[in-house]
Parts: sequence; structure tokens; C-alpha cells
Amino acid sequence: MGERIDVAVLGATGSVGQRFVQLLDGHPWFRVAELVGSERSAGKRYGEVCDWRLSDAPPREAAEMRVQHYEEPVRSPVVFSALPGGIAGEVEASLAAEGKRVFTNARDHRMDPDVPLMIPEVNADHVAAIQAQRERRGWKDGFIVTNPNCSTIHLVLALKPLWDAFGIEQAMVTTLQAASGAGYPGVPSMDLIDNVVPFIGGEEEKIETETKKLLGSYGPDGFRYADLAISATCTRVPVRDGHTEAVSLKLGRKASVEEVVEILASYRGRPQELGLPSAPERPIVVRTENDRPQPILDRNVERGMASVVGRVRPCNVFDVRFVVLGHNTIRGAAGASILNAELLRVEGYLD
Amino acid sequence: MGERIDVAVLGATGSVGQRFVQLLDGHPWFRVAELVGSERSAGKRYGEVCDWRLSDAPPREAAEMRVQHYEEPVRSPVVFSALPGGIAGEVEASLAAEGKRVFTNARDHRMDPDVPLMIPEVNADHVAAIQAQRERRGWKDGFIVTNPNCSTIHLVLALKPLWDAFGIEQAMVTTLQAASGAGYPGVPSMDLIDNVVPFIGGEEEKIETETKKLLGSYGPDGFRYADLAISATCTRVPVRDGHTEAVSLKLGRKASVEEVVEILASYRGRPQELGLPSAPERPIVVRTENDRPQPILDRNVERGMASVVGRVRPCNVFDVRFVVLGHNTIRGAAGASILNAELLRVEGYLD
Amino acid sequence: MGERIDVAVLGATGSVGQRFVQLLDGHPWFRVAELVGSERSAGKRYGEVCDWRLSDAPPREAAEMRVQHYEEPVRSPVVFSALPGGIAGEVEASLAAEGKRVFTNARDHRMDPDVPLMIPEVNADHVAAIQAQRERRGWKDGFIVTNPNCSTIHLVLALKPLWDAFGIEQAMVTTLQAASGAGYPGVPSMDLIDNVVPFIGGEEEKIETETKKLLGSYGPDGFRYADLAISATCTRVPVRDGHTEAVSLKLGRKASVEEVVEILASYRGRPQELGLPSAPERPIVVRTENDRPQPILDRNVERGMASVVGRVRPCNVFDVRFVVLGHNTIRGAAGASILNAELLRVEGYLD
Amino acid sequence: MGERIDVAVLGATGSVGQRFVQLLDGHPWFRVAELVGSERSAGKRYGEVCDWRLSDAPPREAAEMRVQHYEEPVRSPVVFSALPGGIAGEVEASLAAEGKRVFTNARDHRMDPDVPLMIPEVNADHVAAIQAQRERRGWKDGFIVTNPNCSTIHLVLALKPLWDAFGIEQAMVTTLQAASGAGYPGVPSMDLIDNVVPFIGGEEEKIETETKKLLGSYGPDGFRYADLAISATCTRVPVRDGHTEAVSLKLGRKASVEEVVEILASYRGRPQELGLPSAPERPIVVRTENDRPQPILDRNVERGMASVVGRVRPCNVFDVRFVVLGHNTIRGAAGASILNAELLRVEGYLD
Repeated sequence: MGERIDVAVLGATGSVGQRFVQLLDGHPWFRVAELVGSERSAGKRYGEVCDWRLSDAPPREAAEMRVQHYEEPVRSPVVFSALPGGIAGEVEASLAAEGKRVFTNARDHRMDPDVPLMIPEVNADHVAAIQAQRERRGWKDGFIVTNPNCSTIHLVLALKPLWDAFGIEQAMVTTLQAASGAGYPGVPSMDLIDNVVPFIGGEEEKIETETKKLLGSYGPDGFRYADLAISATCTRVPVRDGHTEAVSLKLGRKASVEEVVEILASYRGRPQELGLPSAPERPIVVRTENDRPQPILDRNVERGMASVVGRVRPCNVFDVRFVVLGHNTIRGAAGASILNAELLRVEGYLD
Repeated sequence: MGERIDVAVLGATGSVGQRFVQLLDGHPWFRVAELVGSERSAGKRYGEVCDWRLSDAPPREAAEMRVQHYEEPVRSPVVFSALPGGIAGEVEASLAAEGKRVFTNARDHRMDPDVPLMIPEVNADHVAAIQAQRERRGWKDGFIVTNPNCSTIHLVLALKPLWDAFGIEQAMVTTLQAASGAGYPGVPSMDLIDNVVPFIGGEEEKIETETKKLLGSYGPDGFRYADLAISATCTRVPVRDGHTEAVSLKLGRKASVEEVVEILASYRGRPQELGLPSAPERPIVVRTENDRPQPILDRNVERGMASVVGRVRPCNVFDVRFVVLGHNTIRGAAGASILNAELLRVEGYLD
Repeated sequence: MGERIDVAVLGATGSVGQRFVQLLDGHPWFRVAELVGSERSAGKRYGEVCDWRLSDAPPREAAEMRVQHYEEPVRSPVVFSALPGGIAGEVEASLAAEGKRVFTNARDHRMDPDVPLMIPEVNADHVAAIQAQRERRGWKDGFIVTNPNCSTIHLVLALKPLWDAFGIEQAMVTTLQAASGAGYPGVPSMDLIDNVVPFIGGEEEKIETETKKLLGSYGPDGFRYADLAISATCTRVPVRDGHTEAVSLKLGRKASVEEVVEILASYRGRPQELGLPSAPERPIVVRTENDRPQPILDRNVERGMASVVGRVRPCNVFDVRFVVLGHNTIRGAAGASILNAELLRVEGYLD
Repeated sequence: MGERIDVAVLGATGSVGQRFVQLLDGHPWFRVAELVGSERSAGKRYGEVCDWRLSDAPPREAAEMRVQHYEEPVRSPVVFSALPGGIAGEVEASLAAEGKRVFTNARDHRMDPDVPLMIPEVNADHVAAIQAQRERRGWKDGFIVTNPNCSTIHLVLALKPLWDAFGIEQAMVTTLQAASGAGYPGVPSMDLIDNVVPFIGGEEEKIETETKKLLGSYGPDGFRYADLAISATCTRVPVRDGHTEAVSLKLGRKASVEEVVEILASYRGRPQELGLPSAPERPIVVRTENDRPQPILDRNVERGMASVVGRVRPCNVFDVRFVVLGHNTIRGAAGASILNAELLRVEGYLD
């Protein structure tokens, strides 16, 4: 597909920023041209200021790059944002206004009425909102595309095929989330040695609202949210990476466990059709052993880009229940943004 | 109440057996007179054969006792059984036939149609089944009283006041259970470092069936199970002690969060009325901070005999949801049996 | 011993401050009269501002107390300081100048040439330095007494009897330290899930210098440091409480393992002679099993006030090696200060 | 180098056996032709009987293979043994007698006077012992080559360059070992949640004896052990993979920290000269940050085949001290055996 496109990574020294740098290393379509950081790190070598937490050391090329200050102009046409929620929104909007194509993991614009909240396998057609976004905001080339919260992504990847096939009326979810979801330093070790914290600020609301936008439709009147009731309880457990979620569903029509398994395991979306570079071969991997999925065994399946479902069985209260697990900083964050960008490139939005 | 009653502990060297020995040390009504163990330990000093896992060392008096072999006759009139499920049933029945009052933590007799499955705060009246049990089995003085599974106890302690006040039609539960629930050696460390195991054999079924017996009634026709739908997903997390459970309930009639909190926090049962030695002052402790209960902070509240409830809030799908936590080897196992025995002593069943 | 003495706790909301509050609850000689905190908490109820991390909730009485601001005058004659190093020094000196008896866990004054660094079992006679301290600084009633760093205390408790009996020429120590040693929030969970951090800033130097002052003597010329070579490597491991230390010693004269065990196990110091309220019956507990001491099993022995030694065996390089473990926030911090204060009360320094 | 050589893996379903299968998948020189297991698994598909603990699932080809029973004849000319110590010795000897080239991770033959205990970077010349081995045992083509214990390997990799450059008189080591070193199920989770176990049976002796053989020489009179005093204390910590070791050394002659770092970082051995497929580019990686190496960050450096050294600094007691970390089931076990086999192929021993 010709030359690689230059991209900038905002918040490059943080936890999700590091994942962007790692996943973009050697990417066939994108080339990390700019690493943008805060006051503290600006002007210094990335390898020097970045407290790299992934393993070993940052990619050699990135390590040698000079971190740019937020106030310096961004030159790359494509921007990946790993900025913290609250700060991200304004920065992203002003970059889009300058013509940048912004793919962000931050929460700030996710629920905006003209911003696509996208999982390419789930609602690739929401890309159409970009047109309205540009018109409404007076932007010419730039736009903002968001990906959902880390627990929402894996939940909705598993819900989508069932939503299409059977309908879903009610969903009950309990999450067991990994420490890396809170970034670094994030959760104190005193809270996660021999302990569970049964609360993650804002997380339950994100799952409850984002899911409806993702499963909803986009049309001339804008987004129409999906009509389902959803209730989430979010907990933090002593796990590094990989969110586990226990899910029970009341379906629109009855379905056997075999049907549910078949529908999930055979699901393919646009990224698979298009063969996008970061697309997992199987977006949903179904395990039939009774003790899977497990974080250490399953979080890296399909290079961390799949949702792994197991324990599909009838529910005594609703219709079906299962456990879904996925890598929260790959498919659940940086990888999600990159897959969005890959889709939009093929759709011609990056030209 | 006069002299202490001699008791025997079966399975004394195991994980729950050690808790019995620890909790009975210095008990005002019961005196550990016999420690019964397997081939491997019989004939030796308890302190020598018991791989004590609780902290420090076994109580001095117990440490000096000689472990009895299973085939030696038990002399004490009261027996606490920490035998593993599958093995326990037959041994307990033959001891009861000999006239022993057996209080067991094992699963084998829990669902028997003539055996009380008891939580003194919940269904103290089920003690009446002993009469039928004796008649049906031809036992004169002996009987078997069981306590529920460790996750069921804390769930049902929290459900009972709501069941009484509002009715419960549907319950959805996800548990995050501690390693000690599987005994010792139990779960390999390779399964619980940086990991969650989303399955515990038989556990979901226990919660789903035991809850109905506990909330049901006992009458001339035997046990009548409570009519509610309940669905559980059980997971194992890297925590030593303390099961955490996320619960959502559809109530029989609407109730505000305030009402639910008030009903839970003010609940008292027979053990509180009677001032039983092991009874917690508050069987249900309600925390109002948004990040409680937590195992390390709350599992030892009321000496491990309470269920701690937090995060009471409306549910988007049902009516109310909350998190309940409790110590799984104290109130959830050995402490539960001892409280049953205390109740029965006051009721005259140990005379 | 008559009425309880009013004490103030500085840094009362922090991690060590909470231990002071917990250990002083119900103390026979001291009564917590003032809780002093920072800007953030001053003026509010302790129970409300203190993010209590020990278990359950703060003692009822303390919870109701109003936290005092640092700038308010301290009324109590005795002060326990849990202030962070760097900040503590100046505050403590000015309180001592006002006549307060200050017992501090902070590092700032530990190595001062006129300040006792004390473990009552080890160097109770260093209390004599108070006289010089007062003279040199022009203080009339006030003084500062410090206790060592948490890893030093347990190391030196184990070294002292051997130092006295055989002499020690060289000591090699590797520590495996608990997360609570870094306070709260302290070490990020991302650094301690499935990980070890082989470095703790300043810790090795503290062990290497404080040990020499503790084993040294105090005389007319001031402190004379003990003459031994000591090398420490400090690591942080995924443990909540309890520092483990692997120690190898070159003794001044040969000693058998049996002699070493006998000398350690029979050791008693001034606190034991005097029966101080916080004194452990056995300051050093020796375990003979090959896999002890372990944090979960041994950190609470003697209410966390003992050092537990195990694996005493010959060393291939030096003479003897062993493992010592102790509770780092009880005997290793708040409990150490309190024991110092108890000793000084008996010695008449609090009159 | 022509066709791939068929190899058999003994103990293929165990923890180290799985690593062999994983590391040999796609190996350029060796092809897994036989998987040998116990009674329990023989006759069944590897994918079905093997409780795969590494991640995701076993390599597709291996998963489809039928596990062979120990009593069936082994057809492959090369055998990798992951059998448990105690059992391994006899099986391996009888396979060697049949002409098999046996590379084993088991301890049984390590200290045999005619068996090479090898780390290719350290003592590649010990391969000469094979001649004597064959003569003494009357074996024609077969032989046994062993690799050291997992903690010894990383220790000795770091010692060797210093041994050569400066000499080493005394070595003091404390290890913090990962759970995977004990296999599966191995250490109970109840022993490694919030805990350290300061003992690993037989481990200290292995380090103390194997090191001397590895650093020693082989000549006409057989093995001559290196003359150094070494003392090890081994502990188990809550880490999945990666042994950390704190090391202090008394060198034969003085050396500066800079010299030590330079000698370590520049070290290359036979595998690097020969460019063996599993050889790390840098057998020893030196980190200069003060908080490295760490298991999660460094265990996978050089695909788990390097030893990572950090915190090189002067020792107050000896001359130099540092921390070394390495992957215990890759370079510390299966990868070590494979590297041995690669070396011997190039040396012509597999023809």
C-alpha cells in the first residue's frame, strides 16, 4: 500500500503510550515519526525519559527519538492519543481542527453525538459519522475516532454476534480487571497483594453507556442507542494484564449453548474480510475446557487482539452465561486504536 | 453453663480442621478432647504431624495431644467434622448412629431431606428436622447438622433480611474466591500468580441448591425449597482468605437503597438474641465507602464471623446490587459449625 | 504506674502513623491525646480523613478525634513521630526544644552524634546520650530518641547475642522486604505482581551504618561504632508485611550451630527484665523446621514484636548463616518507638 | 545444515517438557518426532492429555502427536529428557546404552565423574568427557550430556568471565526463585500468596557443587573442580518465571566496577562464535539502572537465553556485588539442553 504514513503518539511515555510505540514498531502502514510528551520529558531522548514497563527496552528507533513538547506543532497527518481522560479532549479537538486524523483511546469524546466509538468488527459503519462531525465542527480533513474502554471492548466483541443472531434484552456483567488498566503507577501494591478492590471509578458507567452506542446504529439522525438493559460491577484483582468478565444474557429469542458457541466462534468482521495488519484471524476464540479463559494462558492469543470466551452454559436466571477475557492494553486500548486507523486507511479516510 | 463438653475434631490436620482447633481453643462451652486424623498422622503428636498453616503454631494444649486413628472409637459426645466431601458422609452417619452429635462442614449430607442445613441467623427453626432424622434413621441421641458451603453462607446471610422484607425473585452472583477455600495444598501457585481461574468444581451448583434450602421452610412435610431463580459464576482469585461476591437481585417488591441498607445493617438473628459465644454482634456489617468491602480490610471484622456488605446501589437490570465479603474458613466453615453447635446447646440438643 | 501519659502522634494518617494509633489503643501507660496531620486532614475527624489500611476501622476513640494541624501547638509531653524522613528532622528538633520527649521512627536524627538510636534489648545504655544531647542543644526537658530502620532492627536483634558471645567480623545480608515498608501508596502494583524489585533507595546504607551504631558503645567521648564489615543487598518482594533477611556471619571465634541456636533462643534484654508492656516474652524466636520463618506464619509471633530466626546452619564461606524475619511496621517501626518510650518511662526520663 | 534430526522429548507433558516442545517448534536443526509420557497419557493425543501451562495452546503439530509410553522403543537418535530427578537417571543411561544421544535437564547424572555438566559459553571443552564416558560405560554411539540446575546456570554464566579475568575466591549467593522452578502443580498457592518460603530442598547443595564442576577443568585425569568457597541461601518468592540472585564475590585480584561491567558485557562464548540457533547474541546483558534486573522486565531478554546482570557495585565485605536474573525454564532448563545439543551437533557428536 505504498509508503508508510507518519504518525504521532500523544502521551507516549505513559502506559498506553508505550503500548502504541511497541505495537507500531515495524508496522507495515504506519511509521512513528513523533513522540509527544509532557514538560518533564520534552526535549529528551525517549529511551531516557520513558520508564518502560513492558519488557526489556523500547524499540531501538523509538528510544533514540527526541520527545516533543505538547506545544510544538505536530507534523504527522495521523495522531494516536494515549492522553489521560480529562486532558485529552481539548488537545484532540484542536489537532483535528488543524486537519489531523486523531485516533484516541481517551474517554473524552467517546459519547459525543458526532464521534464514532468504534470496534471495526462491531460497527465499522459508524465511520459515516465523520462526515457529520466535520460539518458540525467546521473541520476539513481532520476528525476524531475513539475506541471504547478496555472492558467494554471485550464485552461488546462477545455480545455483537449474539445481538445480531438472537437479540439481547438484558446483560449482567461482573469484571475482574487487571492492574495495568489503571496505568502506572496506578493501583498501590498494598491494595493488590492478597486483595480485591470491588470498585473502579467510572468504569461501570462506561460499560453501561458505551455498549449501547456500539451496538446501536448510525443514520441520518445520528446515533441511535441499542435498546438493552445492562448492569456492571467492576472489580480490580491481582493480575497484571487481561480483564476477565462474567456475563449473563437474556436473549431476544432462545438459543442453545451449541448455537451460541457456533455463532461466537465463526464470527468474522470487516477487519478479517479486509485482512487488516492488526486484525486477529479469529476475533472471538471460544475455549471449551471448563476452566478457561485464564489471563496467563489466554491474554496473548492472536497477539492480544482477540476476545477469548469460555464456560458457555445455560443461565438459571437468564438464557446464557459465559466468561470473556481479553488483553486490556492491546485489544483493549492501543491495539484498538491502531485497528481503527487501519480500517480507516482502507476506507480512504487517511488519504 | 457448667462444665465444658468434650468434642472431637475429625480431619483435624487439614485446613478446616486447623481452624476448628484454633477457634475452639479457649472456647467457653467446648473442650477439644480428641483430634482424629488419617493413617499418616495417627499415633503422633498433633504439633508434630500437623503442617500448621494459620500462623505461628497450634495452641499449646492441642499441639501436645496424640492424634487418634479413624478406626479408634470416638469418646466425645460432640463431633466437629472437617472431613473432605465424599469421605465424610459415611463416617458421620456411623458416628451419629452411635449417638454422637455431629456438626459437619462437609457437603455430603447438606441436601439430605432430613438433615438441617443451617445458618443460625437464617433458619434456626430447621433444627426441628432432627426429630425426623432420628426417627427415619433409627438414631436415638445422635444426629447430623450441616453448615453450607463457604460462598453460600455469606451470600445467604445477606439475602435473608431482604428475602424476609421484600422477597427475592431472581439472584445473579459472581464470586471471587480465596485460595484457602480449596484447602492445602489446593490450588497450585502457578494458577494464582498473575491469574484468575474462572471455575471451581461443584461450587456453582452448591450455591444454587443450598440457597434454596436455607431460605426455604421446614414443616411436617419436610423441607420446602425457596422459590427463587439463582445463577452463580465462581472464580478463584489470588487472595488467601475472604470470598468476595457481586450480587444483583430482583426483589419481590421495590425497595430503595436506603431501605435495603437499613434492613441489612439492623439485622439480628437467634445467635444475637441468645448471645452465643461465637456470634458476631452484627451478623451483617454494611460499609458505605465506595471501595469496600475488601478482603484484607474486612475479612476479620467481628472475628471473621460477619458478612460485610458494600456498594449497595440500584441495578440497571434488576432492583438492587451489592458486594458481599466474608471469611471463608471462619464464618464460611469451622466457625459456622461451631455456631451451629452453640445454638443447639442452648436449644437443649446436646444434653 | 499511675495515670496514663498523654501522647501526640505526628503523621497520624500515614501508614506508620496508623500503626501507632492501633498499637497505642488501650495502652496501659500512654493515651493518644493528639493526632497531628497535614493541611489536607487538619480540622477533620481522624476516622473521616484517614484512609485506614490496617483492617476493619481505626479504634473508636481515635476515629472521633479531630486531627490537629502541624502549626498548632502540641500539648502532650510525649510525642511519637511517624513523619517522613526529610521533613521529620526539623519538626522533631523544635518539639524537643519546647520540652517534648520525642520518639521517632524517622531516619533524620538516627545518626546524629548525640541522639540515641535504640533497640531496648540491644543498647538500652545508649539512653545516656540524652544528657549530652540536652547539653549540646540547650534543651531542658525535651529530647529525641530514634529507632532504627525496619530491616536493621530485626537484623541487629539477631546479631546482638552473637556479637556479645562470639564477636562478629563480617556480615553479609540480603533482604526480601515487604510492600508496607514503603508506606501507602508506596510501590505500584505493576511493580509487585509477578515481580521482584532488587533495589530500595537508601536502605542498604541504613543497614550498613545503623548496625554499627547499635552494636557500638556510648561513653564520655560519645558513640563509638562497632568494628565489623557489613554488606547488604535490599530487594522488594510481593509480600504485605514482614521482612525476610538471609544472613551470613564470620564470627570472632568459632561456634557450633547448637551454640548459636542456644544463644539466640535464650536471649533476653532489659524489656524482658522490666516486663515492659510491649516487650515480647522472647525477643528472638528460633524455629528449627527447615522452611521457617515465613512472613504469613511468623510475622505476628509475640504480637509482631519478635524477630524470628530459622535455618541456622554452617556457612561454606563464613561461619554461620540463617534467615531472620520480623514484622516491619510493628517491631520494625511503631512498636519499636513505643518500646523505647516504655523503657524511658521506667528509667525516669518521662517524669 | 541439511535435514532436521528427529528428537524425542521425555517427560513431555510436564512443565519443562512443555518448554522443550515449545522451544523446538520450528527449530532449524531438530524436529520433534516423539513425545514420551507416563502411563496416564500414553496412547493419547498430546494436545488432549497435556495440561499446557505456557500460554494459549501447544504447537499444532505437537498437539496432534500421539504420546508414546516409556516402555515403547525410542526411534529418534537424539533425546531431550525432562524427566524428574530420581527417575531420570536409569532411563537416560539405558537410552544412552542403546546409542541415543541424551541431553538432560535432570540432576541425576550431573555430578557423575564421566558426564559433562555443560553451559556452552562456560565449559564447551568438557565435551571431551564423552570419550571417557563411552569407554567407561561401554557405550558406542550414545552418551549423556547434562545441563545445570536453573539457578546455577545464571549464576555461573555471570561468574565465568570474572573467574577468567580476576579469579574468584569466595562467593555468597541468595536466590529469589520463581514458582515455575518447582514444576506443576509444584508450590501451593497458599505458600506463595503474600509469602516467601526460605527453603528449596537440595537447591543450595546443587549451586554449591555444580558451580565447582562448571568452573573446573576436564583433563586426562577427569574433572578437576574449581577451588572456590561458595555459600547459597535459596528462597521461593511469588514470581511465575525468572530467578533473581544477589551475589557477592571476593575476587582473586582487585577490579573496579567498570572493569567488572566491561568484562561481563563483552563476554562471548562458543555459541556466539558458532552462531548457534538458540544462542543469545549477548549471553550476559548488563543493565546500569539501579533497579534492574527485574523478572517481568528482563526474563525474556534475548528470548530468555541471557543472564541479565545489574546493580554492579563494590561490596563492603568482599570486592564486588551484583544481582543476576535469568529465565529459569528457558535458559535455566529446556533452552540449556537445546543449546548443548546444538553445540554438539556442530562439534560432530550427533552424526
